Amino acid sequence: MDPDPTELLAALRAGDRVALAKTITLIESTRPTDRALAIDLLDHLGPAQDTVMRLGITGIPGVGKSTLIDALGRHAIEQGRRVAVLATDPSSQRSGGSILGDKTRMDALSRSEHAFIRPSPNSGMLGGVARRTREAIQLCEAAGYDLILVETVGVGQSEADVDGMTDLNLLLTIAGAGDDLQGIKRGIMESADAIVVTKTQHLDAKMLTATVQALHHAIPFLPVRDSGRRPVVLRTDALAGIGIAELWSHVHGLFEQDLASGRVRVRRMEQQVGWMKQAIAEGLQRLLNATPGMDQTLADLTEQVRTGRMGALKAAEAVLEAFRTDGARLP
Amino acid sequence: MDPDPTELLAALRAGDRVALAKTITLIESTRPTDRALAIDLLDHLGPAQDTVMRLGITGIPGVGKSTLIDALGRHAIEQGRRVAVLATDPSSQRSGGSILGDKTRMDALSRSEHAFIRPSPNSGMLGGVARRTREAIQLCEAAGYDLILVETVGVGQSEADVDGMTDLNLLLTIAGAGDDLQGIKRGIMESADAIVVTKTQHLDAKMLTATVQALHHAIPFLPVRDSGRRPVVLRTDALAGIGIAELWSHVHGLFEQDLASGRVRVRRMEQQVGWMKQAIAEGLQRLLNATPGMDQTLADLTEQVRTGRMGALKAAEAVLEAFRTDGARLP
Repeated sequence: MDPDPTELLAALRAGDRVALAKTITLIESTRPTDRALAIDLLDHLGPAQDTVMRLGITGIPGVGKSTLIDALGRHAIEQGRRVAVLATDPSSQRSGGSILGDKTRMDALSRSEHAFIRPSPNSGMLGGVARRTREAIQLCEAAGYDLILVETVGVGQSEADVDGMTDLNLLLTIAGAGDDLQGIKRGIMESADAIVVTKTQHLDAKMLTATVQALHHAIPFLPVRDSGRRPVVLRTDALAGIGIAELWSHVHGLFEQDLASGRVRVRRMEQQVGWMKQAIAEGLQRLLNATPGMDQTLADLTEQVRTGRMGALKAAEAVLEAFRTDGARLP
Repeated sequence: MDPDPTELLAALRAGDRVALAKTITLIESTRPTDRALAIDLLDHLGPAQDTVMRLGITGIPGVGKSTLIDALGRHAIEQGRRVAVLATDPSSQRSGGSILGDKTRMDALSRSEHAFIRPSPNSGMLGGVARRTREAIQLCEAAGYDLILVETVGVGQSEADVDGMTDLNLLLTIAGAGDDLQGIKRGIMESADAIVVTKTQHLDAKMLTATVQALHHAIPFLPVRDSGRRPVVLRTDALAGIGIAELWSHVHGLFEQDLASGRVRVRRMEQQVGWMKQAIAEGLQRLLNATPGMDQTLADLTEQVRTGRMGALKAAEAVLEAFRTDGARLP
């Protein structure tokens, strides 16, 4: 039987984690009727509270994201926070993530009654991760969580997407990895408010210093964040509990600054408008794809363009013409 | 009177630079009838020649793009090339760019019968620069130019756009500028096949060395290009003619490698498909915007979303609903 959205919302607001998980499942659904329900439900949540902090956490697989989140989340709970973790990393699926039943990732955090951990949607749905994560953030906030950690793997577009929905971002990196293993890929360092070197406890001091120096050399080449800041470099060892309090204190300080300056509010307003534009563009593509025969038309024309038998613009015009002629007007 | 596209195309193919300029003006036109003509005309050009090299040249204002292009273009002409320069830098308009009538930029190059220089479209049309530049590249190639230099200013999205239409890219930078003045902004260094330090002749040797070292420090943090290469750092002084032959030789060598490996062909095929997808998305937005009353609807809903009175998804749905109900089916 379908869940009743009003009941779900009431239970979610009362702090019921199962209801929160079910509601996130509802908004992840691609069924048109679920989608309509979800949009309506989200519209009733009301505006976000300023005191909630949305923190993006990025790094390549193996850098220690889960371990850091486990330690940082527990520290924040000790400071009185309620912590929700949303994973957008499709590879975390393979390490067995599941709601509160995961013994290998964020083990200690998942046992806290003040934590909610939501694993990745399945990896086949990567394209839509960003949109559903924005919605899941709103639901977690409605359920009373006031630190939202958005975990993402550092391999491309996803960081820009996450930057469009968080207040601050951490980039995790390992010391001593080769050039290519620093996890510094397109766009990633650019959205970092702090760069966190992980697993430092048993590391050769010389190697650690070299890594930190290399990062400091690279930072001047990064664009200045809209906050006017450059990222700082911090050192942690989450298993040993080293640097976690300092990391929280630094992030919390940045957020307080941005709250006081009004930057949090302005940034979120712009993020909402950006989200709307993205949803319109996606909706237009959905309408296009619903045109009868469009799959075949697109496949044929793409092949002709790829092989140079038709110009790109001519092919685009043909696609748009098919849409105008046969385009579905979805109900 | 409107130009006759068949005549224009014939004259253009015969090497008539005025006809080439007029045809580019035609493809830049936003009139729907001109647009249809332009698409038809472009579709008759046929596939590009492998031997044509498309080279992007990026750098902040003042870095010396025009001077370098002037020197590099003349050197390439000495090597038997025919050179077309397409500027996408809206600020170059202010320095007085005009077809062959410009006494301040690319002065020597513009006097060569083997060169064609096309200044920026006017700065009010920045959004469409990328699309028209792709088309202008095709026209220049049809007119027999076999080195296409695409000049762009290094401030954001434009470099990613240019990377989607060139074979190779140069990033120009000045030695000794402060951290922020290196002109290394979002995405720019990432699309560079070579980083060119300009105006080196009268520079303090220590400062030059420091800049080159800083660039070498930053390069390991850049993503590897799809070619598998990292950018090299080259030194030039275009006014003094220093490093120009070496720069051409380096770029030419990379291009020959990519031709031999088939990379040029594969990259261009993917660029065409990307161009088609972009044109479809733009066409859908055009259809949306042509919906009666859509300007007002979008403005109202954006304001509601910005101020938190409506959710982003709800607003997007309202826009799409208006499109479905009242959407224009353009002729």
